[in-house]
Amino acid sequence: MTRRLRLGMVGGGQGAFIGAVHRIAARLDDRFELVAAALSSDPQRAQASADELGVARSYASWDEMARAEAARDDGIDAVSIVTPNHLHAPVATAFLEAGIHVICDKPLAMTLEEGEALAKLARDKNRLFALTHTYSGYPMVRHARELVEAGELGEVRVVQVEYAQDWLAKPIELTGENRQAVWRTDPKQAGRAGCLGDIGTHAYHLAAFVTGMLPIEIAAELHTFVEGRQVDDHIQAMLRYDKGARGMLWASQVASGAENALRLRVYGTKAGIAFDQENPNELLFTPLGGATQRLTRGRVDSDVARHATRVPAGHPEGYLEAFAQLYKDAALQIEAIDAGLPLPPESRLLTTVEDGVAGLRFIDAVFTSNEQLAYTRVKNG
Amino acid sequence: MTRRLRLGMVGGGQGAFIGAVHRIAARLDDRFELVAAALSSDPQRAQASADELGVARSYASWDEMARAEAARDDGIDAVSIVTPNHLHAPVATAFLEAGIHVICDKPLAMTLEEGEALAKLARDKNRLFALTHTYSGYPMVRHARELVEAGELGEVRVVQVEYAQDWLAKPIELTGENRQAVWRTDPKQAGRAGCLGDIGTHAYHLAAFVTGMLPIEIAAELHTFVEGRQVDDHIQAMLRYDKGARGMLWASQVASGAENALRLRVYGTKAGIAFDQENPNELLFTPLGGATQRLTRGRVDSDVARHATRVPAGHPEGYLEAFAQLYKDAALQIEAIDAGLPLPPESRLLTTVEDGVAGLRFIDAVFTSNEQLAYTRVKNG
Amino acid sequence: MTRRLRLGMVGGGQGAFIGAVHRIAARLDDRFELVAAALSSDPQRAQASADELGVARSYASWDEMARAEAARDDGIDAVSIVTPNHLHAPVATAFLEAGIHVICDKPLAMTLEEGEALAKLARDKNRLFALTHTYSGYPMVRHARELVEAGELGEVRVVQVEYAQDWLAKPIELTGENRQAVWRTDPKQAGRAGCLGDIGTHAYHLAAFVTGMLPIEIAAELHTFVEGRQVDDHIQAMLRYDKGARGMLWASQVASGAENALRLRVYGTKAGIAFDQENPNELLFTPLGGATQRLTRGRVDSDVARHATRVPAGHPEGYLEAFAQLYKDAALQIEAIDAGLPLPPESRLLTTVEDGVAGLRFIDAVFTSNEQLAYTRVKNG
Amino acid sequence: MTRRLRLGMVGGGQGAFIGAVHRIAARLDDRFELVAAALSSDPQRAQASADELGVARSYASWDEMARAEAARDDGIDAVSIVTPNHLHAPVATAFLEAGIHVICDKPLAMTLEEGEALAKLARDKNRLFALTHTYSGYPMVRHARELVEAGELGEVRVVQVEYAQDWLAKPIELTGENRQAVWRTDPKQAGRAGCLGDIGTHAYHLAAFVTGMLPIEIAAELHTFVEGRQVDDHIQAMLRYDKGARGMLWASQVASGAENALRLRVYGTKAGIAFDQENPNELLFTPLGGATQRLTRGRVDSDVARHATRVPAGHPEGYLEAFAQLYKDAALQIEAIDAGLPLPPESRLLTTVEDGVAGLRFIDAVFTSNEQLAYTRVKNG
Repeated sequence: MTRRLRLGMVGGGQGAFIGAVHRIAARLDDRFELVAAALSSDPQRAQASADELGVARSYASWDEMARAEAARDDGIDAVSIVTPNHLHAPVATAFLEAGIHVICDKPLAMTLEEGEALAKLARDKNRLFALTHTYSGYPMVRHARELVEAGELGEVRVVQVEYAQDWLAKPIELTGENRQAVWRTDPKQAGRAGCLGDIGTHAYHLAAFVTGMLPIEIAAELHTFVEGRQVDDHIQAMLRYDKGARGMLWASQVASGAENALRLRVYGTKAGIAFDQENPNELLFTPLGGATQRLTRGRVDSDVARHATRVPAGHPEGYLEAFAQLYKDAALQIEAIDAGLPLPPESRLLTTVEDGVAGLRFIDAVFTSNEQLAYTRVKNG
Repeated sequence: MTRRLRLGMVGGGQGAFIGAVHRIAARLDDRFELVAAALSSDPQRAQASADELGVARSYASWDEMARAEAARDDGIDAVSIVTPNHLHAPVATAFLEAGIHVICDKPLAMTLEEGEALAKLARDKNRLFALTHTYSGYPMVRHARELVEAGELGEVRVVQVEYAQDWLAKPIELTGENRQAVWRTDPKQAGRAGCLGDIGTHAYHLAAFVTGMLPIEIAAELHTFVEGRQVDDHIQAMLRYDKGARGMLWASQVASGAENALRLRVYGTKAGIAFDQENPNELLFTPLGGATQRLTRGRVDSDVARHATRVPAGHPEGYLEAFAQLYKDAALQIEAIDAGLPLPPESRLLTTVEDGVAGLRFIDAVFTSNEQLAYTRVKNG
Repeated sequence: MTRRLRLGMVGGGQGAFIGAVHRIAARLDDRFELVAAALSSDPQRAQASADELGVARSYASWDEMARAEAARDDGIDAVSIVTPNHLHAPVATAFLEAGIHVICDKPLAMTLEEGEALAKLARDKNRLFALTHTYSGYPMVRHARELVEAGELGEVRVVQVEYAQDWLAKPIELTGENRQAVWRTDPKQAGRAGCLGDIGTHAYHLAAFVTGMLPIEIAAELHTFVEGRQVDDHIQAMLRYDKGARGMLWASQVASGAENALRLRVYGTKAGIAFDQENPNELLFTPLGGATQRLTRGRVDSDVARHATRVPAGHPEGYLEAFAQLYKDAALQIEAIDAGLPLPPESRLLTTVEDGVAGLRFIDAVFTSNEQLAYTRVKNG
Repeated sequence: MTRRLRLGMVGGGQGAFIGAVHRIAARLDDRFELVAAALSSDPQRAQASADELGVARSYASWDEMARAEAARDDGIDAVSIVTPNHLHAPVATAFLEAGIHVICDKPLAMTLEEGEALAKLARDKNRLFALTHTYSGYPMVRHARELVEAGELGEVRVVQVEYAQDWLAKPIELTGENRQAVWRTDPKQAGRAGCLGDIGTHAYHLAAFVTGMLPIEIAAELHTFVEGRQVDDHIQAMLRYDKGARGMLWASQVASGAENALRLRVYGTKAGIAFDQENPNELLFTPLGGATQRLTRGRVDSDVARHATRVPAGHPEGYLEAFAQLYKDAALQIEAIDAGLPLPPESRLLTTVEDGVAGLRFIDAVFTSNEQLAYTRVKNG
């Protein structure tokens, strides 16, 4: 039997959205068992949450948890970090120091320095550091990457990526009812990058994941539409790549009508592709001058798509399955690392701490460009 | 903590499709733990499968399993039956007799008589008998039902339901490679209804579930396109309902290009709706003479949709989540039955053994109509 | 210069919908000039309409017009008949007798006998008799036909065709405000077939046009949902073809939410196609087990599509262009007939009087089946 | 009877694409009759084209035509200019000087100075100067404008507009076979702005038309992907509007797979809209946090949509009808001007010479920004 790995969790207590998602994702493919947790910084809520979830070992604090679990023979193999952003780095550091593998929600850290330190520590400790850029877990996103890598698009010329939501179109953080809104717009908990850090980095990662390219230069602007908001709620950027490709990225949390509209289009010299996260079971592929093909995960001959799916084409998979895929790949890598074996090739598309560092570099570049960017006046009559 | 229910499984060993789906579905919402199984009629394969899955108690036969589990203090609360169709009734009977709740893959049984006997037995024993008509687990299907029930469509006039696949367009059962194809086209294992039993009944159930109506009369034809096939691979029917509504149903496993195209459209005096299983996160609603609205699960104010979803709108859910919903509702009902309480209202949409009986009655009516139906000649020139 | 043909029109005065459509269609490709008309049975309205449209010669009656135009050296080459249905046959007869080519709105006639007589007369007089089954003028419909003919679908197995509207969901003919509704639901003007004659025949023709097959047997039912209506407003039918293909056809004018939803799907042994009249610039083509391709008129290598289009792919064409195509083909055929030449091959897809006769045979068969059809009772519990 | 206006044409001889489009557009609503033309700068081709089209008066040169037509009692009311871009200004000047109304293909002129001079001349002469920004003729584009104007979107926050094609992805101008490609990539005939002038200005105009806003500042980049090409084939820009709105615009003629993908999205504080030129019969409207509505021209209560359509909803209209709408509006305005009456309100959405000037100002600003724009380096590891 394939042993279930022992998983711990920090954050994600009652009322938290992303913690529940991580738990389902960890469970879905039956490779993890949640056995320990520090579910809240509030000890009572931590315990109540643990009871509700049936977690065997509940801790009042994550540093205690890291020490205690490291000391146990049956201690956790890995920890999921699902706290607000400002705790990602300190928590991850504690568990890496304790020799425990880390699966961390994005963004990686509050600053590039923090992020680079985490990357170094993970390398030094030879521990897995997986970052849950969920959307790279979709079979058709992975297939898109393969198409680019295999040259099916020719040389990439144009990248268009966007992530639109509307849930922050009004100042809902001010009433305090929506806990998500409160911490995600609070620079102390979320970092200085608001929409940029929350979803802009997802768009950035998706484009990089599929094209295999990072932009070398950007012209970007941060904007806050909602009065009183402490962070940006809209970001727009133009991108330049080193072989001459051009691109654009925008993300907005005030785009009225948009639910979770992460979309990527890539145009190469031979073909173009389009992916829409809200309809993730298909990938559109159009050869230059030709007819669009609707590729679906079960009907492409693709090892990476097969590895990332559970049911036949026509039986839609979604966000939770994409998330579960990251956990499945993490399990494969944890077992290999613990056994001193090379990482299994089929797990190679798992998002890494380096991807997180790239995201932090992008955030820095956006802030810099936002200050430097000179617009040109249009001489309207 | 909410206790995880102890689940057993009959069928679903290595290589089986639907067994793995049931296991994910049972696990997804963390209400069940698989602790016992008779995964194959081949004892060695049963054991190997159990080892691979880490199931604590493996049985060589399901009748032994029913007896043994009933005798244990920590015996299973419920059993999932995922065998080929011909075993549904005997296995379910054994577990019901042993006082164990049943969750059974569809179709319910090989004959109407078998099905009615099961329904009676479940009632007599006061045990849950849930039938996994997966597609009724989708939030937007449940919301569609609510819309009809609330009168938002007015009086239903026209029902159009269809289920198209293409995986049996060639005689793939003859080579034996595709085990699914072999047993599903073998009347001894699948029953006399091929496409009709496999997917026609899904279409029939979906229409009934959403409209709350069963047809009172049908004109139907069974057809086998693929030479040498022992069962039908195409079925078409016209439907009449008791208040004058009309409808059509067709299902085909030779519809080239179709993956898993289950679609329902209902037109009432006030509005029409359309649902497509391959794009299950939306429901189209169009008032008479008006603009189509794309309803999504997170953006309708709907208790039934909320109960059947896990993540916000824009984060797509799929087939496995719909399946998991049936298990979640089953858990709620099992706990209530065991506690002698009324079934929780939020679980009321779970498919019942009576739905299965209705499906068997439809199968019978199709076979009868297929013999009686008189076509009229068109006098082509 | 290619001479513009001289066109006459009967019917289509002020307030009529289809007359204006025919005039735009005749004008669009610049092959016809409207020079004579009997636009209304009311002489004053006829004259007022002619004045408004700038038609040179206005007649108070169509029989006078037929005689007078036949007698002129510069008399009309062809007449467009856009009256209510009951006048199609008498008007067409008068003009054919006068040696004038006929372009007639559908349905061809009130009865099969009338229709067959017209077909014979057109043959005897060697005059064009074009019937405006508009939807066969779409480039992608013509390309679909070519795909079937060329064997790209393999042998046709399943035909699904439907035509849904909602404009007659209420008894709007009773108020008299909607003139269309009044005459189209009046058996004396529209014939005994309501929805069946108005749009059911379009669906029937589209399926026949694309597949090249007529059903040999049908099981059909007419239904009237709206109380007090004198004709059917819904029709459903099952179809059998002579090489074993099966099919379904339904048409409804009470399908709440439907605008003009004429849709055809054809599944063959090798591939399936789907066409939706409301999105006519694309044709979906899906090989067995493969990915759907979105074919567009400018991006398929297709003589018939090229012949039926005016602007590049991506520049959408619509209903009026499809209609114009019939006029363009009619012009080609009229010139050939008048010159004693064979019909130009590129015009060969123009709908003929024989297509109209086939439609009338279908109407007859539906009425017969509607009386003979025996439904089978479903033994609901 | 409404008199048909007498129309002349300059350019658009055999083999030209846009000339034929203008002729169909002028004819479609029966408000113009083409009676005079200088169809080619090659006198023989001019005459041959005129003969083929049946144009009564053919001229070897446009200046001769302007003089001669102005001198006739039955001279043309208006001239359509469909030459390559470099001739727009001189030809338009000649006809305006001759007191003849002008309908001109876009872009207005080669330089802003030329364009401003034309605008002044048209004002001074009190002649119509209509510019055929086709896409503003679509009913749903006009309805979109009305929605914004009526405040249905609230305050506009984000504008996303794009225009993607792939027909210039390869250096097809070098072979000379494609005449369109040759002149449109030749700065002497097309101007210094390639993709920017050809389609970027369409995108710019569409956004301005719908939102009623022009950006006050831009950050833009021109790019040429195809080696040896003399003009840009890709342009990307970020936009700032004066009340704080933000936006992006991109246009590309190397976007593999794109046919004629002009798309606009506008997000306001209350709702968002989306329009796709390739599917022009619908407009998507989504309230903040709500369900998307698919608005269609016949099902919205909209004077501007009704004025711009000919057939009921569900009967698709397309590019030619949108183009015809501009001619229809031009006819209304010409009659009013000639009669000394105010312009009819229903024609008010016709594109003006001022719109053309705004487009030229945008082109200038893009070239300026392209030189000034400072990108920021991303410090990739």
